[in-house]
Amino acid sequence: MHAFDQALQLEPKGGGTFRGQTHPAYANMVGPFGGVTAAQMLQAVMLHPDRLGDPTVLTVNFCAAVADGPFDIQARALRTNRSTQHWLITLEQAGEIVISATAVTAKRRDTLCAQEAVMPEVAKPRDVPAVMQKPEVEWVKQYDLRYIRGELPTQWDGRDAGDSESLVWFSDQPPRPLDFASVTALADVFFPRVWLRRANRVPIGTVSMGVYFHVSAHELQSVSGMYALGQAHSHVMHQGFSDQTGVLWSEDGRCLASTHQCMYYRE
Amino acid sequence: MHAFDQALQLEPKGGGTFRGQTHPAYANMVGPFGGVTAAQMLQAVMLHPDRLGDPTVLTVNFCAAVADGPFDIQARALRTNRSTQHWLITLEQAGEIVISATAVTAKRRDTLCAQEAVMPEVAKPRDVPAVMQKPEVEWVKQYDLRYIRGELPTQWDGRDAGDSESLVWFSDQPPRPLDFASVTALADVFFPRVWLRRANRVPIGTVSMGVYFHVSAHELQSVSGMYALGQAHSHVMHQGFSDQTGVLWSEDGRCLASTHQCMYYRE
Repeated sequence: MHAFDQALQLEPKGGGTFRGQTHPAYANMVGPFGGVTAAQMLQAVMLHPDRLGDPTVLTVNFCAAVADGPFDIQARALRTNRSTQHWLITLEQAGEIVISATAVTAKRRDTLCAQEAVMPEVAKPRDVPAVMQKPEVEWVKQYDLRYIRGELPTQWDGRDAGDSESLVWFSDQPPRPLDFASVTALADVFFPRVWLRRANRVPIGTVSMGVYFHVSAHELQSVSGMYALGQAHSHVMHQGFSDQTGVLWSEDGRCLASTHQCMYYRE
Repeated sequence: MHAFDQALQLEPKGGGTFRGQTHPAYANMVGPFGGVTAAQMLQAVMLHPDRLGDPTVLTVNFCAAVADGPFDIQARALRTNRSTQHWLITLEQAGEIVISATAVTAKRRDTLCAQEAVMPEVAKPRDVPAVMQKPEVEWVKQYDLRYIRGELPTQWDGRDAGDSESLVWFSDQPPRPLDFASVTALADVFFPRVWLRRANRVPIGTVSMGVYFHVSAHELQSVSGMYALGQAHSHVMHQGFSDQTGVLWSEDGRCLASTHQCMYYRE
């Protein structure tokens, strides 16, 4: 079983509560990679017997550091409408809330569609060299990263990069078909914008991240390829907090999701 | 007292619960304008005696239609860290959750800053004509709107506008200094992107909106002018759901906030 699918294993305990655990393959410098934690929060909704429709919006708030080991995720449907459902999801360790999240699931309908975001014209993933640097943290090994631009600095010399935009093909390593959980994790694979902009690896942490999904489960199953093209940039880095806005496309140019996050940094 | 400040009046009932009510000046076609509801959710945190620091992230999920009249908002600090605090906020009417929200408040620190988002070069607010159309809903009268581009269509002829970008100076009417509550409401003043793109006033509703604040309370008090420049566009309108991404600047070019929302539409 793929390490990512292993990480998504949640054991139902009844009442919308699931027992899960951090996965060593996705270890970060301290605790687990936040993208997998976010995917686990979503997974509790995906596995919930009362779920209506596909995920449309996910917001994950990283309240404290997740400790390596087991945790309980509780997913509660706060409100169920005819075509939308609102979820509150909490992750607890040792009786304390460590992560809180909200999600909206919805039944989609055939109606007018317009994709305004146009995928940048870039080389195909196989024509872009993969990052060969030896990653310092475990979770980075679980991703195949192929940068068009905005790669992690090779020299931490504090030089101002002028902007913080990245354009990158990424996929699970080994490759795995895209689904809502993996798109959620990919939305957090962008390294901190402040590292890129300032070539200074200051301590950072995601405070809150959001993902808007623009495809149904069926459509996501039928996109071409297992890579996504990610584009991310920051509007503002100010007094310890930076935002990040991003978009993820399928290999065939479908806008799969838009994402945004708020990150703290220390200097 | 300004109608907006009247709308923000919340009566503490103890235990982090506040009694408020919808304000007739901010009536929408059905129920209240969502931007003011979002501001009221934030206000419960602003008034909470345990609050640490300034709002940094706000996510508001519109679970059901708010009925005109009174409501109770409960703000709970899920987790308080040294410099960040995570909030869960719920609005109830008749014992049911109508709105859920999460917020992060934080103490900002003097550290490296970089504003990457550059305000578009546009005429000053006083040099841009105000919208003189007679609004069909009450809340629109409470805002001074001066469009640079992407105004509401004057003919609902279903013509594809090609894109959904708006650029608009807006302020409270009568003018009121900007604060976190009014910036939150302004982030929802953009009319639905699907109306602009398709010149078709289909039924719509915000499902979830987020605001990332990029200034401290002190900085927000000292920005120049009472207008904000708002820029918004959509990435995808698909099967009944559209996203919107936007940025708000002060008159002197300071990036005050970035915002995003997911809206449903019917056709």
